[in-house]
Amino acid sequence: MKHEDAALRLKTIEGHVAGIRRMVDEEAYCIDVIRQIQAVQSALDKVGKIVLDEHLHSCVITAVQGEDQTERERVLQEIIDVYEARK
Amino acid sequence: MKHEDAALRLKTIEGHVAGIRRMVDEEAYCIDVIRQIQAVQSALDKVGKIVLDEHLHSCVITAVQGEDQTERERVLQEIIDVYEARK
Amino acid sequence: MKHEDAALRLKTIEGHVAGIRRMVDEEAYCIDVIRQIQAVQSALDKVGKIVLDEHLHSCVITAVQGEDQTERERVLQEIIDVYEARK
Amino acid sequence: MKHEDAALRLKTIEGHVAGIRRMVDEEAYCIDVIRQIQAVQSALDKVGKIVLDEHLHSCVITAVQGEDQTERERVLQEIIDVYEARK
Repeated sequence: MKHEDAALRLKTIEGHVAGIRRMVDEEAYCIDVIRQIQAVQSALDKVGKIVLDEHLHSCVITAVQGEDQTERERVLQEIIDVYEARK
Repeated sequence: MKHEDAALRLKTIEGHVAGIRRMVDEEAYCIDVIRQIQAVQSALDKVGKIVLDEHLHSCVITAVQGEDQTERERVLQEIIDVYEARK
Repeated sequence: MKHEDAALRLKTIEGHVAGIRRMVDEEAYCIDVIRQIQAVQSALDKVGKIVLDEHLHSCVITAVQGEDQTERERVLQEIIDVYEARK
Repeated sequence: MKHEDAALRLKTIEGHVAGIRRMVDEEAYCIDVIRQIQAVQSALDKVGKIVLDEHLHSCVITAVQGEDQTERERVLQEIIDVYEARK
């Protein structure tokens, strides 16, 4: 469900990017192109949020409840890393 | 040239997004998906920068050197707006 | 330790912001002011990362290992929320 | 006026950062600290926008209307640079 939602959104984003490419080909007004790029980035944010949600409710719960300290640390560190790298 | 560079990059980004969609379909590790999403957002940033560069060197110069105060103000305000909305 | 590191960084950031205010008072070059603002935002990112690290290694572990499903859900949702709101 | 507005906002931001430091000292809930950090970053965005606005309406107009091609190029490149570095 979440996977399907994310995949569907990514399909839409592909079409959106293709549309921006056509705008560029047709020499659309630059600011309109930039605004569409920002809209795609927001749509990607939404997908990232969905995937993070799924991750927290599966892998993270498993790792934190598990016995393996190294694995738990690895999983928590990854969250910090993607938080830091967040656009 | 700049248009072609931007269009080419957008073509690559479409492929990148399609690749992320396949990762999601194949239930790839969530953090890897998030990292690829962040990579696409960085690639889009680069396109935005190229388009803004072109805009500043064409429309903005024309508007600022022109006589039309309203048009000049409109063009400067747009730069502030896309700066603010910048992801 | 982590708390002290974060507090120390925030103290430095206060001084940095006061410095920017003086730059503005003395009519420093606008672009230099903007660059200093961006530097403060990066320094705040670093503090946010330290605090998130501490949070994951304390409250989140406790909540995820605990019996209270509602509390666990609340804690995971907060991570998603701050990820989404991330500047 | 714009200078005064920016300086006043920076003064408020200093107080806001000092407040976050006290929250950290008093071991406030981590997520609340992160949210306050994000609020300060938004407030800094607003100051950055005000300063950019002033810059566009003074230095940029002067440089773009001037005869010095190198200076014009420098000023336009700076806008691209701060756009790219934008948090």
